[in-house]
Amino acid sequence: MTIETSFHGSRAVVLLSGGLDSATVLAIAQASGFACHCLSIDYGQRHRAELEAAVRVAAALCACEQRVLRLALSDFGGSALTDDRIDVPVAGVQAGIPLTYVPARNTVMLSVALAWAEVLGSRDIFVGVNAVDYSGYPDCRPEYIAAFENMANLATRAAVEGATLRIHAPLINLSKAEIIRRGHELGVDYGLTVSCYQADAAGRACGVCDACRLRRAGFSAAEVADPTPYAT
Amino acid sequence: MTIETSFHGSRAVVLLSGGLDSATVLAIAQASGFACHCLSIDYGQRHRAELEAAVRVAAALCACEQRVLRLALSDFGGSALTDDRIDVPVAGVQAGIPLTYVPARNTVMLSVALAWAEVLGSRDIFVGVNAVDYSGYPDCRPEYIAAFENMANLATRAAVEGATLRIHAPLINLSKAEIIRRGHELGVDYGLTVSCYQADAAGRACGVCDACRLRRAGFSAAEVADPTPYAT
Repeated sequence: MTIETSFHGSRAVVLLSGGLDSATVLAIAQASGFACHCLSIDYGQRHRAELEAAVRVAAALCACEQRVLRLALSDFGGSALTDDRIDVPVAGVQAGIPLTYVPARNTVMLSVALAWAEVLGSRDIFVGVNAVDYSGYPDCRPEYIAAFENMANLATRAAVEGATLRIHAPLINLSKAEIIRRGHELGVDYGLTVSCYQADAAGRACGVCDACRLRRAGFSAAEVADPTPYAT
Repeated sequence: MTIETSFHGSRAVVLLSGGLDSATVLAIAQASGFACHCLSIDYGQRHRAELEAAVRVAAALCACEQRVLRLALSDFGGSALTDDRIDVPVAGVQAGIPLTYVPARNTVMLSVALAWAEVLGSRDIFVGVNAVDYSGYPDCRPEYIAAFENMANLATRAAVEGATLRIHAPLINLSKAEIIRRGHELGVDYGLTVSCYQADAAGRACGVCDACRLRRAGFSAAEVADPTPYAT
């Protein structure tokens, strides 16, 4: 595996949800030599255990710092992840855009990351979007990330001053098994992460929601032991 | 003046700060036949009176609703508008990007508006950016707005379903005097709005900060009586 080595000491903002993907992204950014400032957004998600996992993951991977910013996207409703009136789907992958899609979530999170990056003087933002397993989410596609990067390079002080801002999405074309193998090589302890859409207060996974099914299948395909604590 | 008339009943999200520009934008959107859902972001700005002005303006112009969402961009610092350690400039326009620039503020606000628009089923977002008077702000330029619109059209459910999302910036090429004349024709009561970066608790303007200077000069050039309540 090739690890970029030209970023020693440069600051990066890493969007860290506390799930498997973003933990892997943090490990990749750290291994690339970035000093990582982790940002978690409390957008009113049901699965609160995820935010606690983000704290554990940032500490375990020796990030510079980890912050949680509250933004009540749940006030708008419209997703099974934030709206108690919509059940989390457990019947397998649906056609079209999943019920768990949170409107404009990645755009909002990347925008807040951009604000922090600008204050930090960072030119690099890392995000764990993945176009393979979550192909129903419009804001996980490579063309979306490219358009956000283009916009960000017109939006900020850095852009006016001639710097180039990069949105790194190192998982975008990887399968879940490839992500797990890469993180495993980098020493990520996936037992600290929470992917489940309806984890209990102790962070134990339900084992049946879409996120759990994808994750479990990923460990199996990667032939890596699954350290996930399941409730049942 | 041409008022578009093809949007009767369509929903729009209008970013409403409580200042002169966004009040004018709301009046334009209402006159165009949109049912307006106003969004104000409490990002930790010093000038709290602005948020109270947004409530008054939305009511006076008969918007459908007005919401305030809290997002503590002030936690990041980096602007005279959110950081108590940086003084609000009163010495006139500086070269380059003003101290009052809030990192990525318009990107964050437009992103949150996009999230709400998606839940509402709205295809139209209005924002009061202006490239003439605030030419030092990178996120007030037409090319930035175009890039955001392009990104938004890749980000959302609407885009996947073939709809087109529009970012309306009707003030972008107007002078402050032209904005005031347009709002005046549409019946905007500018006495309800607060532009001052350091208004007192009653919403009275300092009269000396950059925002006050631009606003006062605008009323003078427009030959419209200035209804601003000044502290001195």
